[in-house]
Parts: sequence; C-alpha cells; structure tokens
Amino acid sequence: MKEKDQKTAEGILFTDQYQLTMAQLYHRLGLHEKPVQFDHFFRDYPDYGLHKAGYCINAGLEWLLDWMQNAYFRDEDIALLRSQTGRTGKKIFDENFLSWLRQHGNFSGISLRAIPEGRVVHPNVPLTVVQGPLAMAQILETALLNQLNYQTLVATKAARIHEIGRGQLFLEFGARRAQDKGAIAGARAALIGGADFTSNVGVSHVLGLPPKGTHAHSMVQVFLTLGMSELEAFRAYAEIYPDDCLLLVDTINTLESGIPNAIKVFEELQRQGHKPMGIRLDSGDLAYLSIQAAKMLNAAGFPEANITLSNELDELNLWQILTQIEEEAPRHGLDYNDLIKRLVYGVGTRLITSAGDSALGGVYKLVAVRNEEQWVPAIKISETAGKIPNPANKQVWRIYDRRHRATADLVCLNEEAPREMDPVVLRHPTDHSKYRLLHQQDIVEIEPLLVDIFRDGQLVYDLPSIPAIRDTRKADVARLDAGVKRLMNPHIYHVSLSQRLWNLKQELIHAVQESNGVK
Amino acid sequence: MKEKDQKTAEGILFTDQYQLTMAQLYHRLGLHEKPVQFDHFFRDYPDYGLHKAGYCINAGLEWLLDWMQNAYFRDEDIALLRSQTGRTGKKIFDENFLSWLRQHGNFSGISLRAIPEGRVVHPNVPLTVVQGPLAMAQILETALLNQLNYQTLVATKAARIHEIGRGQLFLEFGARRAQDKGAIAGARAALIGGADFTSNVGVSHVLGLPPKGTHAHSMVQVFLTLGMSELEAFRAYAEIYPDDCLLLVDTINTLESGIPNAIKVFEELQRQGHKPMGIRLDSGDLAYLSIQAAKMLNAAGFPEANITLSNELDELNLWQILTQIEEEAPRHGLDYNDLIKRLVYGVGTRLITSAGDSALGGVYKLVAVRNEEQWVPAIKISETAGKIPNPANKQVWRIYDRRHRATADLVCLNEEAPREMDPVVLRHPTDHSKYRLLHQQDIVEIEPLLVDIFRDGQLVYDLPSIPAIRDTRKADVARLDAGVKRLMNPHIYHVSLSQRLWNLKQELIHAVQESNGVK
Repeated sequence: MKEKDQKTAEGILFTDQYQLTMAQLYHRLGLHEKPVQFDHFFRDYPDYGLHKAGYCINAGLEWLLDWMQNAYFRDEDIALLRSQTGRTGKKIFDENFLSWLRQHGNFSGISLRAIPEGRVVHPNVPLTVVQGPLAMAQILETALLNQLNYQTLVATKAARIHEIGRGQLFLEFGARRAQDKGAIAGARAALIGGADFTSNVGVSHVLGLPPKGTHAHSMVQVFLTLGMSELEAFRAYAEIYPDDCLLLVDTINTLESGIPNAIKVFEELQRQGHKPMGIRLDSGDLAYLSIQAAKMLNAAGFPEANITLSNELDELNLWQILTQIEEEAPRHGLDYNDLIKRLVYGVGTRLITSAGDSALGGVYKLVAVRNEEQWVPAIKISETAGKIPNPANKQVWRIYDRRHRATADLVCLNEEAPREMDPVVLRHPTDHSKYRLLHQQDIVEIEPLLVDIFRDGQLVYDLPSIPAIRDTRKADVARLDAGVKRLMNPHIYHVSLSQRLWNLKQELIHAVQESNGVK
Repeated sequence: MKEKDQKTAEGILFTDQYQLTMAQLYHRLGLHEKPVQFDHFFRDYPDYGLHKAGYCINAGLEWLLDWMQNAYFRDEDIALLRSQTGRTGKKIFDENFLSWLRQHGNFSGISLRAIPEGRVVHPNVPLTVVQGPLAMAQILETALLNQLNYQTLVATKAARIHEIGRGQLFLEFGARRAQDKGAIAGARAALIGGADFTSNVGVSHVLGLPPKGTHAHSMVQVFLTLGMSELEAFRAYAEIYPDDCLLLVDTINTLESGIPNAIKVFEELQRQGHKPMGIRLDSGDLAYLSIQAAKMLNAAGFPEANITLSNELDELNLWQILTQIEEEAPRHGLDYNDLIKRLVYGVGTRLITSAGDSALGGVYKLVAVRNEEQWVPAIKISETAGKIPNPANKQVWRIYDRRHRATADLVCLNEEAPREMDPVVLRHPTDHSKYRLLHQQDIVEIEPLLVDIFRDGQLVYDLPSIPAIRDTRKADVARLDAGVKRLMNPHIYHVSLSQRLWNLKQELIHAVQESNGVK
C-alpha cells in the first residue's frame, strides 16, 4: 500500500460504513451530540476446542489511546465521503453532516474509563466504558474493538503458555504467520501476557526490549551448497557470536550430526573462555529429543547449555511435552526438573493467531443515554439471557477472600459502595435462583477495577511501562485459584451482579417486554 | 503506537532478529552479496477441521512490492541496531556491517518472479521466486511471508464462501475481529477472493470500491431509550436513506416486531416512489427466519427486497443454511431458488481470521546458490519426504485437458519445455512408484504460471487492478474440476515434478545422505 493510502486506511476511516450512516442520521435528528455510554466487554473466554481459558489478560489500551488522540476527519477523508453515492446515484452524505464531521469529527469529547492493561479480566464485565457524544462514540466502535479484542486475545494465550510452560524463558516468533501488520500488536500483547522477548526487531525497539533470535536452516544450507559442512557453519556462527551462541541442530540429522557438531563447537568456545548458550530443536519428537540432547550435552560437560524448543508450540503441546519429559527423563537417568529448567520456548503461529479460537468476541453495547439532565439506562433484549448487556453506568469490584485469592468480580451500579454492604449479595448474572452471600469478615480486600483514562478527551492516566504492565499481570495471575488456571475444564470464576443492578436489569427487561405486548 | 514508532515497527525492521544476525555473518565471510534463490511456497491447503480447501487463491503481492520499494535501513534503524548488546554487554552488530547495511540495505538488488494475484494455486509450487544478494534476500523473508501468507489465506476462504454461497452478493464485515491493522489487508484479500464489498471504509476508498453497511442494534436502542419505538427508528433511517434502506430487524423480536415494522416502512417508501432494499437478520435460526421473512415480505408485495444474513457465517454454516432452505422452503410454498437469489451475506470474524485454520504455513526456502558463475542447487533434508523442498530454478506449468479443465501443475526445471515433451511425464512429488503420462493430443493448453515482477529491483510488471485480479480468480476457479471445489473431502489436485527435476532432487538427497554417512 502507498503511504498516502495508508493514512486513509489507518486513520479515522478505519471504521465500518454503518457507523457513518448512523452518525449522519443522528446529526439529522439533532442527536449527534447527545451524551451516551457504550460498554466494551466480551461474553466468553477463548475456547480452543480441546482446552479453554478460565481468565483473560486485558491488553491493547495504550495504542488505542494513541490512535484516538490522532484520528480526525481530514479534508481528504471528507472528500472521499463526499464521493460516495447510493443505489440511485445520489450522494450518501450531505454537506451539513460533512461540515460537522470536518469540525467536530474527533475524539476530544470522549471520556473513557477502563480496566488497566495486564489485569486479569472476565466475561460480561465492562473492560472499557466510553461516554461522549453519540455520533463520535458510535464511530469509535470499530477501532476500539479491533485493537482491544486482538491484544487481549493474544495476551491471554501468552499467559497460558507462560503458566503451562512453568515460567521458563519464552520467545515470541510469529511475525511471518500474523495478519499483516497485526504482527506488531500481536508481539506487544504476547510480551504483556507472558512472552519474555520477541524476535520481531522493530517492535522490540519500540517497546525498549532486546529482540531475540538464533539462525535458520538456510544458514547451514548455504554452507552445504558451497561445499562446506554443518560444523563449519556452526563454527562461523560461534566465531561471530561467541557469547550468544545458540545453534539450530536439525538441518541434517539432530542426534547424529547437529548435536555432535554443536558440542564440538561448544568445546572450542569453552577453551576460548566463552560460555555456550545452547541448541535449538525445531522438528521431531521434542520431548524425546530434549532428553537425548540433555544427555549428550551433560556428558560433554555442558549441563547449563539451554535447549530451545520451537515448531508449532502452544500450551497444549507444551503440556504434552513437559508431561512426557517428567515420565521419561528418569528412565534416562535425568532429573526432569533440571531438564525443564533449561528449556526455552520459541512460540510462533499458534500464539500470534490464537490458534483454536482466532478471535475474541468483544462487543460494544449502548448501556445509557443522557436525556434531560438524566442518565437513562438502555437495554437490549435477546432470546439468550446471557446476551442481554448490563445497563447503566457501573463499577466492577474484585473481591479477595481470606486466602487473598480473587473470589469474584462484582458488577455494581456506579454509586454503590460494596465495602459498606454486609453481607455482599452476589447475584448470578442470569439465573434467578442462584446467589451467594459474602460477609465483610470473610473479605480481605474489595478493589475497584475501572480507572479514569480520558476525561473529555484529555488523558488523565499515567500510562504504565511494559515492565509495569507485566508486574500487574503477574500479581493478578498469582491471586487466581489454581482451578481457574487449569489447561482444560477450568473452574468458572464468579462474575456477579449487585442486587440493585440485578433489579434494574429485570425492570428494564420487563418494560421492553410489556411495551412489546409480552407479559 | 506513536507515528515515529510506527515507522520503526513497519519499515525494514519488520523482520526477525535472526535474519540480521545471519546477514552479519554472511557479511563477515564475504558471502553477503552472493546471488541466491529462495522459493516461497506452502505445503498444504488450509484445513478447517470439519472441512478443507482443495485450492488456494494467491494474494498479497502488490502491497509486498510497495513495501519492498520503500523499505531501507534509515539512520534511525542503524542507531537502534547499534544499541543492541549480547549477554556479555558487547555490541551485537559491528560498524562494518552497519555501514554496509546503511548503504546497501534495500531491495534494489532483488529480482522476483511470482504467480500473479488472483490465480488458483496449489501446495509445493513456488508462488514467489526471489533471486538476489544473500543478505538482503534473507532479510526479506519475514515481511514476504507475513504479507503473502495472510492475504492468500483470506482470499482462499473468501473464494470458498463465494462458491458455497452460490455467488450471491457477499460483504466483508470483519474489521472488529481482525489482528489490528491486519484488517486492512484482510479486507483486500477478501475482495480479491470473493467478497463483493467490505464495510471497512478506508480500505474501500483505497481500492476504489464503495463501502457497504446498514445500521446496528444500537440505533434502535437509542430510539427506545429516548421513549420512541423501533418503527420510529426505521422510519428515520428510511427518510434519510430512502433508496438504500436496509433494516436490521432483530433488536426486539424478528418476526413479531422487526419484520412487521420494516414492512410498514417499506410500504411508506413505496408510496413515495422508492424501492426498499431489504432487511438484515443477525441472530437465531437464519434459514428458518429467512423463510418466514420471505413469506411476510412476499405477502406484503416486496418479493424483491433482499434478505441479508450475518452472525458468524462461514462456508460451512452457509452450506447448512442453504441446504435447510432447499429442504424447508417448498413446505412453506416458496421456491427455494427464488429465496436463495435474494440472499446477501455479511461475513465477519470467521473470514478475516480464517477460523478453523488461522495461518497458512507458507515457507521461504533456499533452493540455489550461485558459485563461480554457476547456479548450484540447494537441498534441505527432512525426515518427512513431503517437507524436502524442490531444488534449483524452476517454472510451473499448468496443464489443461480436453475439457479445458486444469488437470495438473507441473514443476519443471526452468530450462525445460513441456510443450515439446510427448508424453509429458508427471512424477508424484514423493512417491517413487507413482507417475502419470499425458500425451500432447490430450492437452489443450500448457501455460507457465510464474511471471517476471522485479528485475534487479525494477518493477517490470503491470500491476493489475482489483477488478482484473478478480477476473483472473473467476476464470481460474471456473477451470477447476468440481471435485476440487467441494466443501469437504476435496479431490487432490495433481502437483507433479518433471522427470528431470525428480532426478535432480533424488541425486541431491543421496549426496547429502552419503556425505552424512547414510547409505
């Protein structure tokens, strides 16, 4: 794409056509500047088929804020909209609306609260709360969902890989299989969720982290094609990178050629006073080969050389590999813990595309409209009770029990004070008959999750650094029950409504049903 | 992301770290400008689980070329690389290499042949052939795979939806669920593969197509919350868009509220001399509701109003919906063909993420190195025969049989002339015992697929427009056997090697095995 076109495609016109046709309708009716509230939330955890997430990691906010601060309707954008015609050849957008868009078509009137990046989040909880003039709040939907859905999806997968991988060093390698420039946001999200580094050079520098990498099969192939050997290729690499020498050992034959040649080169490095870094296995039975590699490296006096695994890794096959190592390593005279502690994971395709569930179904729903100085809660009926959004302006409170574990997220009306409720009533979001009572004495902490980000387009929030976001994530994941973190069949974390929010929701549902002739 | 950072992340540093460490190694050894050839190809069709593709649609080339023509190592990029240090704190890149990169770090030395966008393509066939200096040809890998993998993945899915959807109007709606800015490339690929339009405003204008859209549930909700009705919302929309009036009918209750209200508004429009466009169904049993909607619209005198379906559509559930309509429409006194002919599809998440198989496994493999004025073919051994790339510089020929159907793609050495072979020998790519003979009298056409794109960095190819690329796709898909286009269990299209290429490959495999002590 040409640079000029990129500005068009990535700016304020990164939206769906219906946002603009609706905005014009609101403008025509004089509703375009009416204050409204949209909530952004997702309805269910990613379900990867054989396994499913029991929590998500929130991500994507900072780059969304950057976009919002820069996006506006330029003259060029207005000219493109002016050129649009409908079925009969008449112009779709009128000059009054275009002139309003040119002047007011930006996000300076938007206020935004959000759950910070890195925090553990759950379904049906508002993650992002947008208040502002109807037309621009509507136009924001597409970009907001696009950026927040994807980064949260990948941060979640990365957190699972980090957990199942027992916290071993974990590198993101997926650029070549991502959706075009989505690779960049994907790498950022992976780094928030659990990856330690990425191979992606540009985004690493943008985020202030060193990029990581080794070499490809093609390097060994170049040597072979020029009549030289794998050993000579390894030696050349070691000479240039003596202190960062990680060798890919499966170009010819892992056990018969790659590892023996790597060991020769490691011995040479050691004699020169360098500490070899390790090897990379990129094909075959990675658990079996890890055990064999560990035995060979140990026998040669390199018990600390790491063993990097790559090739279609995700949390499921990582779990299989680690289980197999636990079972088989002892038979080969190896301590499985020692072996696992030297593993490094290179994770590509299946992380950056969230293989198994390639989209988070985050939505953006109208929950209130300000009319005659009053916020009026909005409802949307659905035949599936779980799909009816929670109305009105709300706060989310996370409740920690005596074990200092998060035991529930309570969604309240904004003005409620759950610290003063005793007992706290936790209503199941859809099932009338289910509720739970929690006494203050059993609660060690109640913490509000939504914080102020934008007030009328002004940033009122200190954006945390990537290391700070990671610390947030680590602290939150540590306070989850083990059951919620399971690979498969996780415990269902409680997301509950306060009694008042529950009542309001039921009243609104009944009102719509009655006006629709349903009793 | 800030604009300055975006330039860093999307420019030449959109690459994997190992490409740069290998490039430095080649520079140190004086191999960096040695001419080499890499082939880009994929190894298998997308496999969506319950169904699988039997062909792919090639896409992504034009924007890759744009990127290649603009990417180079800027001073800022060099400064970032200079800042990188290894484990011991020493700099990773030396000044000689950085200085070479600053001067020569661009793609002006690259020659490129490719199969044009929109063409049907198959596994293990070179889609893109890169020749050029080793260091820069290596650095290109990440961006090339990133762009071509994704657009081909989505164009393929779009072609399937178009085929299974019987060619009905098909709109791409997926921006909110794509990987960040990947939505833009995804929309382009969908438009190449089979979508008629996209809702994405920016990319529509970039590509010269009108964006399409209707309205969301939120519009009806705004009216309800302000004490007005669904009917008033529809009426307001119809007043502003009288000739493009497509109404979303499932905000309250599709059959009891949405469709009756839409019909009232359509009657008003008709009295004013406008032709109503139709309705959109976004939830529930879409086949059942389509039938009911058609009956109601017909009875009201709107047999031409279209019925737009959305909500997690893909080729599989579209096939289910159309099958159900065929079975059930007659029982309701409807001609199923008439009903299907008024359907429009809005396809979001499952297209833009290629749900079921979220990445195309395209790879980029060294196949030749020029040494002492000779091209030396390169090989890479794998324990899986199907993963050994085809060596040397090649051409791909598509063979059409007497039915004017594509019957095989023959991969030959570049200097071979299959038009002069009689019979043409088609070797199975891995199975010694399998081959097929085709006599010239049974062949109506043999067509080379790879065309010259760049010669030494100069574009020598007229980039086709989107409509021209679509025509290419339509012509190619029309020449496929029906079996190859099946939703499930497609026929396996023949991709074959010429006898000479087969022989060369076997010789190279034996040579490596012998040098490795294997007989």
